[in-house]
Amino acid sequence: MAQDIRHFAEELQQLKSRLLLMGGLAEERVSLSMRGLVDRDRDAIRQVIEGDEELNQLQLEIDDRCFKLLALYQPMAIDLRTIVAAVKINSDLERVGDLAVNIGEAAERYVLHAPVKPLIDLPRMGNLAQRMLREALDAFVSGNIAAARDVLAQDDILDGLKDQIFRELLTYMLGDPHTIEGAIDLILISRHLERIGDHATNIAEDIIFIVEARDVRHHADERAQ
Amino acid sequence: MAQDIRHFAEELQQLKSRLLLMGGLAEERVSLSMRGLVDRDRDAIRQVIEGDEELNQLQLEIDDRCFKLLALYQPMAIDLRTIVAAVKINSDLERVGDLAVNIGEAAERYVLHAPVKPLIDLPRMGNLAQRMLREALDAFVSGNIAAARDVLAQDDILDGLKDQIFRELLTYMLGDPHTIEGAIDLILISRHLERIGDHATNIAEDIIFIVEARDVRHHADERAQ
Repeated sequence: MAQDIRHFAEELQQLKSRLLLMGGLAEERVSLSMRGLVDRDRDAIRQVIEGDEELNQLQLEIDDRCFKLLALYQPMAIDLRTIVAAVKINSDLERVGDLAVNIGEAAERYVLHAPVKPLIDLPRMGNLAQRMLREALDAFVSGNIAAARDVLAQDDILDGLKDQIFRELLTYMLGDPHTIEGAIDLILISRHLERIGDHATNIAEDIIFIVEARDVRHHADERAQ
Repeated sequence: MAQDIRHFAEELQQLKSRLLLMGGLAEERVSLSMRGLVDRDRDAIRQVIEGDEELNQLQLEIDDRCFKLLALYQPMAIDLRTIVAAVKINSDLERVGDLAVNIGEAAERYVLHAPVKPLIDLPRMGNLAQRMLREALDAFVSGNIAAARDVLAQDDILDGLKDQIFRELLTYMLGDPHTIEGAIDLILISRHLERIGDHATNIAEDIIFIVEARDVRHHADERAQ
C-alpha cells in the first residue's frame, strides 16, 4: 500500500512534468507564429503550420496517463480533482497549439501583401497571452492560487488590447480599402490571441477549483474533529 | 454490490440526461442568437447576451455529478472513459453557450447599421452547426459511432461555407467602405459558428474514443480467452 502511494505520487509528478513540457511547446509555437508575422519570416510561419504533430502526440500520451492514473489508483478528493483538471488542461493546451496554427495561416496570407501598419500592440498581445499561459501552468504545478487569480486579472488587459487593435485597424480600412484584406487577418490574429488568453484563464480557473475544493475539504475535516 | 451497480447505472443515465438537457439549451441559445440577427430582433439578442446563467449553473452541476461518480463508484474501462468524456463534453457545451453570447454581441452591433446584404449562407451555417451539435449529443447517448463520424464529415461543409461567406463579404467591403463595420461583424459571426462546429466535432471525437476503446478492450478479452 505504501508502495502504491509512492508510485502514485511519482506518476502524478510525471504527469505534471509532461503537462509543463506540453505547455512550453504550445507557448513556443505561439511565439514562433508571432515572430513569423512580425519578421515576415515565411519559413517560421510554415514551421508553425506544419509542425503540430508533436503537440498532438503529447496530448494523446497525457490523456492516456490520466486514464491510467484514474483506473489503477482510483484516487480521491484533491488527487482526483487534479487528474480531471489535467485532462481539461491537456485539451486547452492542444487548442492553444491549434490557435498557433490559425495565427500562422493568417500570417501566411498577411505577408503576401504590403504591411498595413507597424505591429506594436499585436506583439504585445502575443507576449501577454504567452505569459498568462506560462503563469497558469506554473500555478498548476505549484498549486499557487494567488498566481492563478493573477492570470484571471490579466485577461481584461488582453481584451482591452484586442478592442484597441480593432478600432485602429477599422480606421485604416475606412481610410484605404487596399488595407482591408490585411487588416482582417490582423483582426483575426488578435482574436486568436484573445482565445489563447481564454485557455490560460480556463487553466487558472481549474487550479482555483482544485485548491478551493481542498480548502473546503480541510474545513470539513476541522468540523469532523 | 448489485445495488451499487444499479445505482451507478441510474446515476450514469441521469448524467447523460443532464448533458442532453444542457446540449438542448446550448443549441436553443445559438438558434435564438441567429434568429435575433436575421430578424434584427433586439429583444432576442439581449435575451441571449444576458441569459447565460442557466447554462453556467448546469455546467457546475454536471461537473459535480462527474466527480461524485468517479469518487463514489471508481468506475473502470468504458464507464471511466464515458465519465471523463462527459467532463470534456460539458466544457464544450459551456463554450457553445459563450459563443452564442459572442454571436449576440456581434449581432447587437450589426443591427445598429443598415443590413450589408440579405443573410442566406450565415443562417445556413447556423442551422448546420446546430444540427452537428444535436447529432453529436444523440451519438453520445446512443454510443452510435457511425453518427459520430457523420458529424466529423459535416465540419468540412461548415468550413466551406465560412470561406465562401468571407470571400463574398470581402467583395462588399472593397466595393463600399460603409459596409466594412457590418461585414466584419458578419465575418466574426461566421467564425463563432465555425467554432460551434469545432465543439460538435470535439464531442464526436470523444464518442469515437469511448467506443473504439471498448472495441480494443473487447479484442483484448477475446485474446485472453
